[in-house]
Amino acid sequence: MYAIVMAGGSGTRFWPASRERMPKQFLRITSDRTLFEETIDRIKTLVADEQVYVVVNRLHEETTRNLLGSSNARVLVEPVGKNTAPCIALAAIHIARRDENSPIIVLPSDHFIRDRERFALKLRAACEAARHGAIVTLGIPPTRPETGYGYIERGKETEKAMGEEVFEVKKFVEKPDFETAVEYLKGGRLLWNSGIFIFTAKTILTEIRECLPDLHEGLEEIGEAMESDRFEAVIERVYPQLKSVSIDYGVMEKTSAMVRVLSGDFGWSDVGSWQALYELRSDEYDEGENLLLSEAMTIDAKRNLVYSTSGRAIALMGVEGLIVVDTPDALMVARKERSQDVKEFPENLEAAGRPELS
Amino acid sequence: MYAIVMAGGSGTRFWPASRERMPKQFLRITSDRTLFEETIDRIKTLVADEQVYVVVNRLHEETTRNLLGSSNARVLVEPVGKNTAPCIALAAIHIARRDENSPIIVLPSDHFIRDRERFALKLRAACEAARHGAIVTLGIPPTRPETGYGYIERGKETEKAMGEEVFEVKKFVEKPDFETAVEYLKGGRLLWNSGIFIFTAKTILTEIRECLPDLHEGLEEIGEAMESDRFEAVIERVYPQLKSVSIDYGVMEKTSAMVRVLSGDFGWSDVGSWQALYELRSDEYDEGENLLLSEAMTIDAKRNLVYSTSGRAIALMGVEGLIVVDTPDALMVARKERSQDVKEFPENLEAAGRPELS
Repeated sequence: MYAIVMAGGSGTRFWPASRERMPKQFLRITSDRTLFEETIDRIKTLVADEQVYVVVNRLHEETTRNLLGSSNARVLVEPVGKNTAPCIALAAIHIARRDENSPIIVLPSDHFIRDRERFALKLRAACEAARHGAIVTLGIPPTRPETGYGYIERGKETEKAMGEEVFEVKKFVEKPDFETAVEYLKGGRLLWNSGIFIFTAKTILTEIRECLPDLHEGLEEIGEAMESDRFEAVIERVYPQLKSVSIDYGVMEKTSAMVRVLSGDFGWSDVGSWQALYELRSDEYDEGENLLLSEAMTIDAKRNLVYSTSGRAIALMGVEGLIVVDTPDALMVARKERSQDVKEFPENLEAAGRPELS
Repeated sequence: MYAIVMAGGSGTRFWPASRERMPKQFLRITSDRTLFEETIDRIKTLVADEQVYVVVNRLHEETTRNLLGSSNARVLVEPVGKNTAPCIALAAIHIARRDENSPIIVLPSDHFIRDRERFALKLRAACEAARHGAIVTLGIPPTRPETGYGYIERGKETEKAMGEEVFEVKKFVEKPDFETAVEYLKGGRLLWNSGIFIFTAKTILTEIRECLPDLHEGLEEIGEAMESDRFEAVIERVYPQLKSVSIDYGVMEKTSAMVRVLSGDFGWSDVGSWQALYELRSDEYDEGENLLLSEAMTIDAKRNLVYSTSGRAIALMGVEGLIVVDTPDALMVARKERSQDVKEFPENLEAAGRPELS
């Protein structure tokens, strides 16, 4: 088994902790380790480390290598971020040269998984299902009418893999409006698209050729240069010209290949905002339901989230439902319900010519 | 004319901006200069600088001298803080050696005065009234039923000084409860005790001998050593043993001297809390009624006060009625109504063995 860990993201929703140079996967927000480290750790029992391919943006190469430490995982550097389809394709052509018929697990590097054993079990089952040419996805049973995710409509059961039910995918569905999301939640047949996929290199490269011929052409050029001294020059020239497209939109929604889904019932979260983080770690609340991820003095403070990397003393009095994020060069105090809008700050700072803060 | 500027206070209500080593008078909260500098500046037209006596705690001597710059004001250092009666007495014995019959203006160094010209006029009138042995006070016409101040009950008009009405003082009244404060506000005869006094050195030293004989005895010992090389040793030994007592309680409430009051109708505030500061500077609110004393990005933020000495970017979203105080080593986020309770933080930190933060 192989793995592609996608660590190229550059989130803005955890500002001011996250920055262009310090995206969410490098934050220590779900534990005392980064989301990236947790992701690598989670697949250790499944994939030998020299078969793990981490795809990163050049900006984050050093951070990534530092976090990988003595691991033999391969680091593939994107000259620029180009969404998930080029990222997966780049790693897949590397893997295809070694082994085009073994299953590859594709994972975002900034998600949270509560039950690691169940997660490993599902991935093993998914690999089993992917061996003979299927594109397999993990769909998360929804727990709220979420309008921020794409959905996967499950069809009938096709088989069991290692005792786990495998279903047909009827279709991939774009982010719904609220009423539709409420319907989805009732129906029980629509699952959240987790962005976790399992397929062989052969399968995905074939489907990319079918669905995204331009991307495939660019990849061929990169693939031909691989292991030659032209490689750097070729990827520098070709990669930035590739179309920025997601694997979901570019391949999943169009493919004529077999697509299957297993239920990702292992306690998943994409940790999409400060509020999501607050809800995720409810077992760590203090008596005022505050989530104090850094030491803080509180007097009559309720339901606040405090996160600090500055080392300074923090004191809250009489405040409720706030997010207080304190870094060496920026401080944010926001109402928790406004978590989705936090990205406006780095956007404004970028526009105002202060990219170091964005 | 002489002046005694009392700069020995060590406030905790502006934590974390104020600390034991950085009391309120040294904060730049009412303008871009410290309250201490504003106080010194305010009396420039009234008193020659070599006739200004600044009394400070040893902890703050260096800060005080730095802020005085090239001024010829004299700095008197208290070995320990002993409330206002010993502080005033110490300065008065210094002044008495030069001139015991000229009026002395006694001023706290951490108040705000809106109308400087009117303030100067009132002080000139008060000096006139003090020349012949009266203890003169400035009483502030109350604007709210304040329970945090002492009051002065005004009697009948006794004279005009430089055209300003001078009144008898019937009595000094301790801090009232709320209902009494409401009555006081209606009656119109009760004024806030501003802590600003005017008297000659002869008058105040006579009254201290009458009302606080123990204090007077200690002072005599200090006075005898003055200008000798024993002075340092004597003040070090004697001063710490003096009774800690306010001039209000120790002298004003007991004296049989003439006591007079003039109306301090010049826009006074003791800037007693973050909330008081917020209200004081209402002409500087932004469109959301935020008082941003430091640069801050705001999105849907209303009626907040932001003060920062850390130089960091600050961002507020969706929050209302907060005080956000950001310093290099401590951050506080509090509801504005809780301003009076802010002192609990430095108290707790002191108790927890972190005096550097208190």
